[in-house]
Amino acid sequence: MSDALFDKLCLIGIGLIGSSIARGARRHNLAKAIAIADSSYEARKDAEALQLGDLYDADPAAAVQGADLVIICAPVGAYAEIGQAIAPHLKPGAILSDVGSVKQAVVRDLGPLLPDHVHFIPGHPVAGTEHSGPKAGFAELFEGRWQILTPLPGADQAAVEKLAAFWRGLGSNVEIMEPSHHDQVLAITSHLPHLIAYTIVGTATGLEDSTQREVIKFSASGFRDFTRIAASNPIMWRDIFLNNREAVLEMLGRFSEDLTALQRAIRWGEGEKLEDWFTRTRAIRRSIIDAKQA
Amino acid sequence: MSDALFDKLCLIGIGLIGSSIARGARRHNLAKAIAIADSSYEARKDAEALQLGDLYDADPAAAVQGADLVIICAPVGAYAEIGQAIAPHLKPGAILSDVGSVKQAVVRDLGPLLPDHVHFIPGHPVAGTEHSGPKAGFAELFEGRWQILTPLPGADQAAVEKLAAFWRGLGSNVEIMEPSHHDQVLAITSHLPHLIAYTIVGTATGLEDSTQREVIKFSASGFRDFTRIAASNPIMWRDIFLNNREAVLEMLGRFSEDLTALQRAIRWGEGEKLEDWFTRTRAIRRSIIDAKQA
Repeated sequence: MSDALFDKLCLIGIGLIGSSIARGARRHNLAKAIAIADSSYEARKDAEALQLGDLYDADPAAAVQGADLVIICAPVGAYAEIGQAIAPHLKPGAILSDVGSVKQAVVRDLGPLLPDHVHFIPGHPVAGTEHSGPKAGFAELFEGRWQILTPLPGADQAAVEKLAAFWRGLGSNVEIMEPSHHDQVLAITSHLPHLIAYTIVGTATGLEDSTQREVIKFSASGFRDFTRIAASNPIMWRDIFLNNREAVLEMLGRFSEDLTALQRAIRWGEGEKLEDWFTRTRAIRRSIIDAKQA
Repeated sequence: MSDALFDKLCLIGIGLIGSSIARGARRHNLAKAIAIADSSYEARKDAEALQLGDLYDADPAAAVQGADLVIICAPVGAYAEIGQAIAPHLKPGAILSDVGSVKQAVVRDLGPLLPDHVHFIPGHPVAGTEHSGPKAGFAELFEGRWQILTPLPGADQAAVEKLAAFWRGLGSNVEIMEPSHHDQVLAITSHLPHLIAYTIVGTATGLEDSTQREVIKFSASGFRDFTRIAASNPIMWRDIFLNNREAVLEMLGRFSEDLTALQRAIRWGEGEKLEDWFTRTRAIRRSIIDAKQA
């Protein structure tokens, strides 16, 4: 067996993503040892039962000791606290990364806390399911999916390449991007779709009881696709919206204008306008199938 | 082989749904002969090549001759014209049904045109895919899905039961409902989700070209689920929105209020409000899984 890419990988947070990284890193021999930190006792016990790591700790400061790769896999709202706890204990030359769905806020919250002798390279795997917790993870989660890295200006190229190699080892395609551009693209591809799915599922729960039962019964007609998305981790999504506020509100503004235009077309019976719009959207589906992301 | 339920089934329109009925009816021996009418030459040729029926005609008036079950499988906007064409040629005692996603408008458009000696029983199979045309159909489409029938007051019970038996033969569960209640339930479970998916996919196509390419690339993060829905038949959906205007606008009003409330919570950083909302929507997913409609 060839040498592992990293000697010690430390995962802070062992939910769906952290646990999938642990499983993938093991399978593909990407780290000799895996340390897992999670503030939840239950999560640590589950991780231990699943043999996801080699050591388990409630305290991230203890878990990062000697790690040459640290990945924060916690909700973005917890980063500042985690950063303060681990900063003095990070090994010189270590790579610190994360899997948060927003990147400007991560740079803002973590950047100032970290010592110069650490390579800080934020990241975001564009992959996931609606399930949460250590048991929900699986080693294949990242296969064929994109891993976005958003290194800061002046980042060490060798460190970026080593982190990219880790993600390629998990099966991902790696893309380098500016944090601000990442946040704008994800606002439309991920954050707004989730917000809208959460909204409509909530709207349905507000209906009278008898109708609500039928909503569940006849959900195969479109609604159920939204409920899958709206079953994602509430804390994680709360933090995403609070930390990508500007881009989400900007995309939401565009969406609301478009929705109002279609609403007006329905009210005034403008069939041609509706048909034109619905014909245009078909083409996008074709592109996604061609890009093998369907 | 036991006797078929019907002697002659006539399908007016041979797209995804019509073609799936034809395949299912054949497989389960529900009709001795199948006549297919479609105004599109290409659709008729495709249907013939797939051997979906026993005779093919551009003119629905010719196809319905002698049929004891006629099902209209065309966009709802075409019903009035079809009704006028076929009314004088329907066999006494024949059942006339349809598969339209709205039911009040169907009763309004078709009802007055039909002779008294025909059993008019509107229907709606809650099943479908984003693909269109005769080639897209498959015999299993209705298996385990709901077939909603909306018979009018005073409908012949034996005829309703015979039509229900036909759909059970295709694998469906049959539900009887008032047309107005159908339209309200489907507005939230199907029509509004489609409208929103169409909107957001259209919003994304309005972005600058470079961002649009990335939207496709990173669509696995939520967006792609919407593009599948927004790839559905544009004519069919135009007609649904125009013909279920009141219920769709009512549900859209509720949705917009909720979206504005969440938008405000994001702008003002009200994390608790977001988390509460996102936690509530999770429960609905659980109910859908329990109802085996996931």
